[in-house]
Amino acid sequence: MAERNFRSLLEAQWERGNFLCVGLDGDREKIPESAQRESIREALFAFNRTIVESTHDIVGAYKPNTAFYEAYGAEGWAALKDTISYINQFAPDVPVILDAKRADIGNTNKGYAIAAFDDLGADAITVHPYVGAEALAPFLERADKGVIVLCRTSNPGSGEFQDLITEGEPLYVKVARNVAEIWNANNNCSLVVGATYPDELKRIRSIVPDLPILIPGIGAQGGDIGQSVKLAKDSRGKGFIVSTSRAVIFASDGPQYQDAMRRSAQEYDRAIRAALVD
Amino acid sequence: MAERNFRSLLEAQWERGNFLCVGLDGDREKIPESAQRESIREALFAFNRTIVESTHDIVGAYKPNTAFYEAYGAEGWAALKDTISYINQFAPDVPVILDAKRADIGNTNKGYAIAAFDDLGADAITVHPYVGAEALAPFLERADKGVIVLCRTSNPGSGEFQDLITEGEPLYVKVARNVAEIWNANNNCSLVVGATYPDELKRIRSIVPDLPILIPGIGAQGGDIGQSVKLAKDSRGKGFIVSTSRAVIFASDGPQYQDAMRRSAQEYDRAIRAALVD
Repeated sequence: MAERNFRSLLEAQWERGNFLCVGLDGDREKIPESAQRESIREALFAFNRTIVESTHDIVGAYKPNTAFYEAYGAEGWAALKDTISYINQFAPDVPVILDAKRADIGNTNKGYAIAAFDDLGADAITVHPYVGAEALAPFLERADKGVIVLCRTSNPGSGEFQDLITEGEPLYVKVARNVAEIWNANNNCSLVVGATYPDELKRIRSIVPDLPILIPGIGAQGGDIGQSVKLAKDSRGKGFIVSTSRAVIFASDGPQYQDAMRRSAQEYDRAIRAALVD
Repeated sequence: MAERNFRSLLEAQWERGNFLCVGLDGDREKIPESAQRESIREALFAFNRTIVESTHDIVGAYKPNTAFYEAYGAEGWAALKDTISYINQFAPDVPVILDAKRADIGNTNKGYAIAAFDDLGADAITVHPYVGAEALAPFLERADKGVIVLCRTSNPGSGEFQDLITEGEPLYVKVARNVAEIWNANNNCSLVVGATYPDELKRIRSIVPDLPILIPGIGAQGGDIGQSVKLAKDSRGKGFIVSTSRAVIFASDGPQYQDAMRRSAQEYDRAIRAALVD
């Protein structure tokens, strides 16, 4: 039996034309009435389960962000594990990206790698670049797992350090170069580039023609989905995933909220496919 | 009743001459026999409790690193909360730094701030600078809590990005400047600078005369404690904490391990005090 591999799972999704990543960012106060449960663990899991049931055949990845679960303590952490276990069983062809933005030094990262990959069962993790590749070895050496490095983040103030010119080009370009040329020895690296920075996205794609790019920042944050797809696709018309969360998972809080989620995901999916053939 | 405040707690510890921070980095396999329990939650907590009992009167801070707890899932998270709750009750004058190295964007950081400060009860958190101050507002606006920014990390490969020259000086210097000049509006910021980089530590102290500096990297990593103290102290002979973990908490695995912990912490404490009057 072939070992589960993040990049292979992504490639299979791209083969099917699935480029949408849905963020599983639970918020107890926004969970519809019918998914509410007495315990927060059950409520977060019940809600995530309905998202997965409604969208698993049209998405290319799921992306729970650890911040939303940690806010509920050990119960939240248990809900995160329940959710990833469920996806791995119910939709085993959909990779799970743990949006944890971790990065410590040396052996300490072993704890995070065990947590993300072995305990929680995620296929990939997002990491900060600041400590350098040497420190991130416990992630990078896991060839079957994805290491998705923050390159250009989608927030308005991301330029504070990322735009600083070093060796004749901005820091975010240097990060992209190092990840492509040094970090990616196991072919398991990707980059995060926000849809809110189309010029930067274009520049990064020209520098790293083969690295997968995870694109947050569409929808509520203002990034344009069609433009992002055109700028991010590789020479094969693949190589990217577009991530959205609230616009899909909180599409409605009424009794038919599952239908609303699916319709919203379908709209994003259609917009991506249209941009690819445009 | 005065509100609990990280900087005030630190200042009170410095007043007492306490500059040592002990890292609570639990590892089930290294926990001495007498602290072992059937559940990992109880074992991690029992061990941390013995560390605190043995050292609370001679330390300036405790610093649990989240990686070691997350590796054990929800049980580990519960042990982390048990530990911080215990310190807050048993040794309320000792601030707790959550060494989490978090940093997401915008509202997502609210989840991490709630987790660290409100759910777990920590007094400070370590964060990555890459996303910029705008993104970290949910941490920075908590004036009573410490925000400890990675500036120069202690690992051998930390120069990959941190040493890049931008605007005529290395990136880590720019981080130090921005934190001092922009991020620190609420007087709640500190920097992380590894003891393994004494030249950089000296340079940073000259640039940020008033910011507290957290110094990891002594002991196993090779940083010199006396040199670090001399380079890191501010004009008052205060303004820093030196962090160690394994050398204290795993000083012995025999039945008298609590005595060994205390002796090890006392040796570090004496070395710091000696360097301050040298």
